[in-house]
Amino acid sequence: MGLVVQKYGGSSVADAEGIKRVAKRIVEAKKNGHQVVVVVSAMGDTTDELIDLAQQVSPIPAGREFDMLLTAGERISMALLAMAIKNLGHEALSFTGSQAGVITDSVHNKARIIDVTPGRIRDALDQGAVAIVAGFQGVSQVKKDITTLGRGGSDTTAVALAAALDAEVCEIYTDVDGVFTADPRVVKKARKIVDIAFEDMLELAASGSKVLHLRCVEYARRYNIPIHVRSSFSGHVGTWVRNKPEGEEGMEQAIISGVAHDTSEAKITVVGVPDKPGEAAAIFRTISDAQLNIDMVVQNVSAASTGLTDISFTLPKTDGHKAMEALTKAQPEIGFDSLRYDDQIAKISLVGAGMRTNPGVTATFFEALSNAGVNIELISTSEIRISVVTRQDEVKDAVRAVHSAFGLDSESDEAVVYGGTGR
Amino acid sequence: MGLVVQKYGGSSVADAEGIKRVAKRIVEAKKNGHQVVVVVSAMGDTTDELIDLAQQVSPIPAGREFDMLLTAGERISMALLAMAIKNLGHEALSFTGSQAGVITDSVHNKARIIDVTPGRIRDALDQGAVAIVAGFQGVSQVKKDITTLGRGGSDTTAVALAAALDAEVCEIYTDVDGVFTADPRVVKKARKIVDIAFEDMLELAASGSKVLHLRCVEYARRYNIPIHVRSSFSGHVGTWVRNKPEGEEGMEQAIISGVAHDTSEAKITVVGVPDKPGEAAAIFRTISDAQLNIDMVVQNVSAASTGLTDISFTLPKTDGHKAMEALTKAQPEIGFDSLRYDDQIAKISLVGAGMRTNPGVTATFFEALSNAGVNIELISTSEIRISVVTRQDEVKDAVRAVHSAFGLDSESDEAVVYGGTGR
Repeated sequence: MGLVVQKYGGSSVADAEGIKRVAKRIVEAKKNGHQVVVVVSAMGDTTDELIDLAQQVSPIPAGREFDMLLTAGERISMALLAMAIKNLGHEALSFTGSQAGVITDSVHNKARIIDVTPGRIRDALDQGAVAIVAGFQGVSQVKKDITTLGRGGSDTTAVALAAALDAEVCEIYTDVDGVFTADPRVVKKARKIVDIAFEDMLELAASGSKVLHLRCVEYARRYNIPIHVRSSFSGHVGTWVRNKPEGEEGMEQAIISGVAHDTSEAKITVVGVPDKPGEAAAIFRTISDAQLNIDMVVQNVSAASTGLTDISFTLPKTDGHKAMEALTKAQPEIGFDSLRYDDQIAKISLVGAGMRTNPGVTATFFEALSNAGVNIELISTSEIRISVVTRQDEVKDAVRAVHSAFGLDSESDEAVVYGGTGR
Repeated sequence: MGLVVQKYGGSSVADAEGIKRVAKRIVEAKKNGHQVVVVVSAMGDTTDELIDLAQQVSPIPAGREFDMLLTAGERISMALLAMAIKNLGHEALSFTGSQAGVITDSVHNKARIIDVTPGRIRDALDQGAVAIVAGFQGVSQVKKDITTLGRGGSDTTAVALAAALDAEVCEIYTDVDGVFTADPRVVKKARKIVDIAFEDMLELAASGSKVLHLRCVEYARRYNIPIHVRSSFSGHVGTWVRNKPEGEEGMEQAIISGVAHDTSEAKITVVGVPDKPGEAAAIFRTISDAQLNIDMVVQNVSAASTGLTDISFTLPKTDGHKAMEALTKAQPEIGFDSLRYDDQIAKISLVGAGMRTNPGVTATFFEALSNAGVNIELISTSEIRISVVTRQDEVKDAVRAVHSAFGLDSESDEAVVYGGTGR
């Protein structure tokens, strides 16, 4: 009966009814003897509405002011949630990111957490209150300005608080029942994963599974915080994300976690790069100086006749414009021929343990795509993942073919990834 | 070319267009060589919408959480305003009440300012930026909780900052051209007051003139901060509120500032109070313990036969329920007969210097009311004000009759209250 951190997303608190439903669930956890810390996102479309307002007054809203604006969203939902809990006869206190001790760097709009000093949260818990904390926001260490954590920020807040408070579990409430072997909207026979290791979840998240954000899983893995992803609309057990149970780490056969896809990326190809040391570094230093994250990187073998090569990489479409701008500016210095931009791509990834030592996995993956008539443009692999880039209009066929080829389709609706029994 | 504090109300920043219009006006002041601090209210109906949400989740929202909720409103408007100014090529930084150093007591929903430590505002000004500050909010000194200042809070924030920063003037922008000799919606011939002394403005505000709030005028008077009330929709000179110019203080004739009315109060009559020392004190201690403010107090001469008297007082209707509850609870202890509650009253006040030494003023006032067929229920006077309570449905007739009787009606649209020339 220890401390539980619960995180509720915007769809769970979209209106007064949703807030009251969430309040009841929190009070239940309290009644079960837990100390409860709740991290909450902005209500429904609030953040989008604020972004829209910002664009009406200024085409390029300034980072610091944009953060000040967006953090109003969580302020509203957390205050309302605290009121709703008090209305059920339990004490609740809401805290901004700053009040909760979420200390970040100064990179507005996508700040990173550098420390968590939850003294006021501990005080609230000691008083027997539920502590409600604004997700997605913090305060910068040096300038004491309000910052936001960018995409997945509320999940990350929840895991960071769970780590700082030594919580038993971090429950991430969402509008689906857990993490599935593929997107259930695409693959009807996708199964819910009952238990999955941090590493596999990391790869799924990095590959486009939208239920948990990569940063949050990274944080949970580093501090070994078990995550339970579940629905705020049902009482079902969801998906546990945690370290592999002891004794199962030595298993040798490949165990596929799932198939993820992602259509939010674009591909940039840098054409005609001199094939000499330092060129790739110059390109990616340019991207990194512009504070942009990239995903897959592929360099083809250079044509012997020209001594030139092409370098392709993928990145979020939303960063595509900035990357093209930065590279165009750096073209004279780096010395490539031209740039190509393609936002009609999709990425399909197969994630699971033991892939590299099971060559059959790769073969089955490519055969499944080929049988479905899907053409492969880029390939990238890690120890527990294979990703390919294809045309965007082929993505659904590709995901279904791979899901089926690996025997993930099922009559039952739950997948047990490494023999975990759930709980 | 010193420091100017400008305050913009919710109607001035009701939408993106309003925010851009206000931004232009601020930049103009900047271009004229001023250092500019801006205090801003929540956009249009934002606060009402938030209150509505709160009532949907909890019938009696808790004070601390209610303040957390409401302060989201200014956070949105100030961030948008800063963006709009930056979009015009000028630096702007927004600050919450807490960041701006507005330190208050811990009375949620109507906190009082106890200190202003505007170090970050000074830094922003030193950097050449416009400082945008959230009105209506602060942070409590002991518990570091977010507080709101209650009615008139944004005006008070503006004046408090003007005092702490030693500003040249505090400009209060609103949706009317200034302070008028009577409410222009009731008296068509009401004139704009060009210049008015703090004391007269205090009485007008206390008597129901809604343009400036009493607390803000009290603060300005204490720290001698000239206020310029003007419209954000026009370039007209508005109303100056400041110390009387030297040399005019000795004038002996009565000079009427204006006629104010107020229909927001209720009257409570405590019937059958024993006419002995300590009874009135017990009644008003009860009210004060309930954190309620009262306005007029009238005690009739006691009937010799019974030794009992009636005490009547007025207070905001919104506090009426709480006052009745507190008094009912204290009835056995205080020992009165009964309570009467009446919310169909109106207060009409005549404000101006030199009234007490000019008996003709009082006579003219009562004659005007009598000629208009208005019955008087309570009377209360100060050195520069006469107020009466009448039936609410007679208030317009009463205001027009008094305004006319004192020669305030005019073809011209400006009133010069004590010979001030405007500027």
